[in-house]
Amino acid sequence: MLVNVFIIGIGMIGGSLGLSLKESPIVNQVMGYDTDKTSLEKAQQIGALDCSVPFEEGARQADVVFLCTPPGTYPELITRMRPFLKPGCIVTDTGSTKQYIMSILGQLPNDIHVIGGHPMAGSEIKGINGADRYLFENAVYILTPREKTPDYAREFLIELLVATGARVKIMEPARHDELVAVISHIPHLAAVALVNSTGGEKDALIMAAGGFRDTTRIASSDPLLWEDILFTNRNMVMNKLDGLIEQLQDLKLALAREDHEHINTSLCRARSVRESIPRVHRGLLPGFCDIVCIVPDRPGIIAHIGAILGEKNINIIDIEILRVREGDGGTIRLGVLSEAAADEAVKALQSRGIKAWVR
Amino acid sequence: MLVNVFIIGIGMIGGSLGLSLKESPIVNQVMGYDTDKTSLEKAQQIGALDCSVPFEEGARQADVVFLCTPPGTYPELITRMRPFLKPGCIVTDTGSTKQYIMSILGQLPNDIHVIGGHPMAGSEIKGINGADRYLFENAVYILTPREKTPDYAREFLIELLVATGARVKIMEPARHDELVAVISHIPHLAAVALVNSTGGEKDALIMAAGGFRDTTRIASSDPLLWEDILFTNRNMVMNKLDGLIEQLQDLKLALAREDHEHINTSLCRARSVRESIPRVHRGLLPGFCDIVCIVPDRPGIIAHIGAILGEKNINIIDIEILRVREGDGGTIRLGVLSEAAADEAVKALQSRGIKAWVR
Repeated sequence: MLVNVFIIGIGMIGGSLGLSLKESPIVNQVMGYDTDKTSLEKAQQIGALDCSVPFEEGARQADVVFLCTPPGTYPELITRMRPFLKPGCIVTDTGSTKQYIMSILGQLPNDIHVIGGHPMAGSEIKGINGADRYLFENAVYILTPREKTPDYAREFLIELLVATGARVKIMEPARHDELVAVISHIPHLAAVALVNSTGGEKDALIMAAGGFRDTTRIASSDPLLWEDILFTNRNMVMNKLDGLIEQLQDLKLALAREDHEHINTSLCRARSVRESIPRVHRGLLPGFCDIVCIVPDRPGIIAHIGAILGEKNINIIDIEILRVREGDGGTIRLGVLSEAAADEAVKALQSRGIKAWVR
Repeated sequence: MLVNVFIIGIGMIGGSLGLSLKESPIVNQVMGYDTDKTSLEKAQQIGALDCSVPFEEGARQADVVFLCTPPGTYPELITRMRPFLKPGCIVTDTGSTKQYIMSILGQLPNDIHVIGGHPMAGSEIKGINGADRYLFENAVYILTPREKTPDYAREFLIELLVATGARVKIMEPARHDELVAVISHIPHLAAVALVNSTGGEKDALIMAAGGFRDTTRIASSDPLLWEDILFTNRNMVMNKLDGLIEQLQDLKLALAREDHEHINTSLCRARSVRESIPRVHRGLLPGFCDIVCIVPDRPGIIAHIGAILGEKNINIIDIEILRVREGDGGTIRLGVLSEAAADEAVKALQSRGIKAWVR
């Protein structure tokens, strides 16, 4: 069975879905709809869509509808598409919270197969310019089917998503919202609170080393988007925020009663849990091995290192400049795919007089 | 006046100080002491010390003493060196908190010039192997002179530290401890609490995308070291922890009363404060400009990009692989020194068929 896919909202997510779904052997055509003409044109240019269609026509022809607009638009879109959808059509979305969204998608009649979706991937480039055929590769992609949705519809959507390379996981909407609250929404609020705790004091900010920057990076995200996410998962966020506050109060009490053992236990537990996070770097590659090298800081040095490793057919899959100063040496971390490759890379670099070691 | 420097504790910090102070025109010799023989030998090999000396001899000859051991060892070291120190000798340290440490160093007699110190820099490589002549370059280096310390002693230490390239800032010990609590100790506890809030649940951890990893990176640090830091700054940490908890409670109440405006204001304020952090990347370079490019993922591609920019004499001062997948394209961020260089780099990359833009 070849299906017609209808993507509503052709931005970074919608565009990326289009690019990968066009590669699927079970797709007949990918149709797109957006209120922004430029995005539609760009999407067709880069091959993310077969065609752009009027909303009604898309809804009428669709076997699978992907909602890739902000969740605030869903109620209106659902109302508009409802009269035109074929019985048996799958409607799915890509929003960040699922209970609230399922209550909206749930308004569709029973002969429409409603399956919530949340791909755990994104790009720092917004809109269609951020579209990327591999955006979802190896990323976790949560699906939350409506209770009435038959298994075959769910299986069909999973088969369709194979083209994206995502790792699909089925979940209850409430469970999804609980997990994203813990792993995403609460860390976000913590970063916001940490930054605001500085009161913006200049003296404090100039002392901000890497630790503070890392911890608060997400506080630079789009406030409007996050306001929306937080309010559509409000109860869970409030609940988990209580959990974080309790953890902090527990640490404070341990400090107050000078309970070294309790502090030490908490620090050790945090370290061991954090190190158990599956090491899929940037969400996209299996475990790899790091080497560190010290190099002079001059134009071409990255090329030089790259060439030394390229000669040995060693692929650099991650690179980070740990420290650098103009006119002199820098410290660079390189990620390669295996320990054997790391050993070989170290040898190759050392043979060219570059200080290097496996981390 | 040429001075004798005596460094106690030859690890990453002590070794780095030795390497840079040896370059100072006002230094006669750098003497070192450590209970670990191997560190002393290694330090002499790499040129971080002129000689290793018995403790008493070092204390006797020293014009400036640097304590670079864990603060827990200071009381004993102070007691041991006290009978041998010359009047007018400067005693300084490198510990992470200052009020508690000044109360210990303050036990030295008035004719010894006590000046607390805290270089805001570090390396992920521990011990003497992490020693680096440029570790402190452009890093903020806080000094907290004892009240009785004469200005000329303070000025002399600043002159000596010029060799490290650090940006010296004089501060009250209490002010220092307040600022590091806000910018370092509280973020650390927040990261610990966030990680422990997950309960180590596998389902949550596999959903951890870049945001969670960044926010909790510091939770992987050495628990013993941090236990020590937190307890030597206990009152300030407790105080600022209350501040963080209040911020979180304020956010929770705003969610509870569905106060969109308040949440939005908090998110916007956090973003603007975070973006005002002086952009000295990795603490070491002036503002620079980012470009992003999309490249095929194959051995040698980093070399290829490096060569294209090297040809144009454009120095890559930062590089980050944003996304990569085996056997296909990757997205790379490159930092260069100016907007002009960024424009030129984009043109050079595009002319070789590489999709690139200024970020």
